Amino acid sequence: MRPAMRKVDPSNVGPPQVIFSGIQPTGVPHIGNYLGALQQWVKLQDEASPKTTLLFSIVDLHAITVNQNPRQLRNACHQMLAALLAVGLDPKRSIIFFQSDVDAHEKLMWILSCRAQMGNLSRMTQWKASSKLNLSDNAPPVEALLNTELELGLYSYPVLQAADVLVHRATHVPVGHDQAQHLEFARKCARTFNHRYGTIFQLPETILSPAKRVMSLTQPHLKMSKSHQDPRSRILISDSTEEIAQKVKTALTDSNSGVSYDPVKRPGVSNLIEIMHHSRADGASCEDIARDCENLTMRAFKEQVAKCIDEHLGEIRQRYEELVGKEKEGYLREVAESGAMRARESAAKTMHLVRDAVGLGGFQSFVKKLD
Amino acid sequence: MRPAMRKVDPSNVGPPQVIFSGIQPTGVPHIGNYLGALQQWVKLQDEASPKTTLLFSIVDLHAITVNQNPRQLRNACHQMLAALLAVGLDPKRSIIFFQSDVDAHEKLMWILSCRAQMGNLSRMTQWKASSKLNLSDNAPPVEALLNTELELGLYSYPVLQAADVLVHRATHVPVGHDQAQHLEFARKCARTFNHRYGTIFQLPETILSPAKRVMSLTQPHLKMSKSHQDPRSRILISDSTEEIAQKVKTALTDSNSGVSYDPVKRPGVSNLIEIMHHSRADGASCEDIARDCENLTMRAFKEQVAKCIDEHLGEIRQRYEELVGKEKEGYLREVAESGAMRARESAAKTMHLVRDAVGLGGFQSFVKKLD
Repeated sequence: MRPAMRKVDPSNVGPPQVIFSGIQPTGVPHIGNYLGALQQWVKLQDEASPKTTLLFSIVDLHAITVNQNPRQLRNACHQMLAALLAVGLDPKRSIIFFQSDVDAHEKLMWILSCRAQMGNLSRMTQWKASSKLNLSDNAPPVEALLNTELELGLYSYPVLQAADVLVHRATHVPVGHDQAQHLEFARKCARTFNHRYGTIFQLPETILSPAKRVMSLTQPHLKMSKSHQDPRSRILISDSTEEIAQKVKTALTDSNSGVSYDPVKRPGVSNLIEIMHHSRADGASCEDIARDCENLTMRAFKEQVAKCIDEHLGEIRQRYEELVGKEKEGYLREVAESGAMRARESAAKTMHLVRDAVGLGGFQSFVKKLD
Repeated sequence: MRPAMRKVDPSNVGPPQVIFSGIQPTGVPHIGNYLGALQQWVKLQDEASPKTTLLFSIVDLHAITVNQNPRQLRNACHQMLAALLAVGLDPKRSIIFFQSDVDAHEKLMWILSCRAQMGNLSRMTQWKASSKLNLSDNAPPVEALLNTELELGLYSYPVLQAADVLVHRATHVPVGHDQAQHLEFARKCARTFNHRYGTIFQLPETILSPAKRVMSLTQPHLKMSKSHQDPRSRILISDSTEEIAQKVKTALTDSNSGVSYDPVKRPGVSNLIEIMHHSRADGASCEDIARDCENLTMRAFKEQVAKCIDEHLGEIRQRYEELVGKEKEGYLREVAESGAMRARESAAKTMHLVRDAVGLGGFQSFVKKLD
């Protein structure tokens, strides 16, 4: 059973809401990114009350915590921005921006760093997974901290994440389960600051993404991921009809006959059913789909899955192709610049209050009094 | 014997030099700050070739690594700026600015964080001294890192210090002995970055301050410091003739008769001789002074010391009083704003190269191509 999506702004009462979320610039998103996060962002945008502010950031500063090829990173940023627009984020409605264009994120990070306790950071589980230290879950973090190879950024980035959210005084943050701990840490940072300097930060609420775990086509026990070597393991939202057909055709299933939904015993087939379920607009459950398809050969079933994905992605792919075309480069640049400007305004209000509270910048008369 | 001051820019050949240094906003400096650092800054400024850029930063972001009263911090920033001008830094010649006014410092810190290794940071000795952990010199840093109370900023600030220096591509950094390790760390950050992305950063050279260790008047085995409780332990550069006389009069000496220079056996008397030595313009050595004064009573000797300090500080005190007067508030603000603007320009050139090298901000067409 998938958890119900949190209703945002149901009654239009209370203070205006601010929704913030971020995504790493991994290039063209795969359907796992799309169904797991981006589709929800679009839904939040389209259903939000007019009073709600939405901010979606391509978090390029987080991307550099691991080694990146600079050219590829820039290209991946470009692709991700085009993809966000292609899936339906509207730059007139939502503030879409590159994290590195808004200085206030790093500025607030430093201020939060001065109060964030290392004991709390050491208990974060994500950095242990990201680092190449191969720590067992039970290994004490001390081993890692003493490791001369571990970079500070890989350890301190939850503080930057906290700043990402708090600098826009977000009230709601849609995240995956793997980020829930970091959002709890952000709330802790906010409470510590508010306790010391007066209430400036909102305590952001988590909107947990519906559990759409799309698995790898070639290794269905693993999440679909950009970091897996085999490109056939994932379908990108820009893939052509033929590419989709080919990838689904070679997807790892099993030698049982017929189609049935059993994620434990038949992970490959069940993953295809789930992808079909999420791609169809008619609300058919995984069980419904399995029943409809139970007598199909695997080949015929896969053809149906591919067709279903292709239909769902068709418009997105078309918009994506238009957006990355040479003639649209100026448009993407404009979107990035205008998003950056609006995000800077959003952050400036908070930073003015924060700097005033902490005692910084008394001479900055050129920062006008803000509301 | 005090080490010779490093000659800066002796030949006017080679690329233009950039001198950077920072000072914490501790309010009105005492003569220890003045003789130990500020006097050297003024000398560097006055003797530098016209091609040399000088930047002096009031590092308010470093100040908040420990708990600060916001009102007092802002006031202390105000006083430090006035003091820098009073001792002779010229805002037309040198770039004098508040660190928190220049976003590039935190921006570069984050980028350096992504490559700075925690093993290197853990070996820094300063944070262990600053933290309230009372670690013995031999205690492994692991204890501190696991300590839930230690704040990240107190541990990571050498990376911000590295950014302070590198973002202006400083070639020379005057620092005290206690900061030499941090500057070595800054060079390591620069080498790591240059190795990965191409040569962008200068490797800054240390200009070690002449060893003018001015000791506390009340506890002459300790350095003169703002953090000591008894205000009679230090002479501020704004102290009146009477205050100076009173503080020197109550300075702890010993019951031996006469005056002699012996820092080990007579720390109090020797400290007064050294202060006199540094305050006099005639180049008289400590031994010369001791010989001249050997038959004086302690009271008469102290009167001479006070007179000598008062003469040296007279002009500085007068300028300081003018600068903190109400009518000068607008002037100080202007100095801070113009310093911030020039420091931002200096940093922007580096950040443009850095962001380009790392692969950030490809859409920022509004950042003009810089030289």
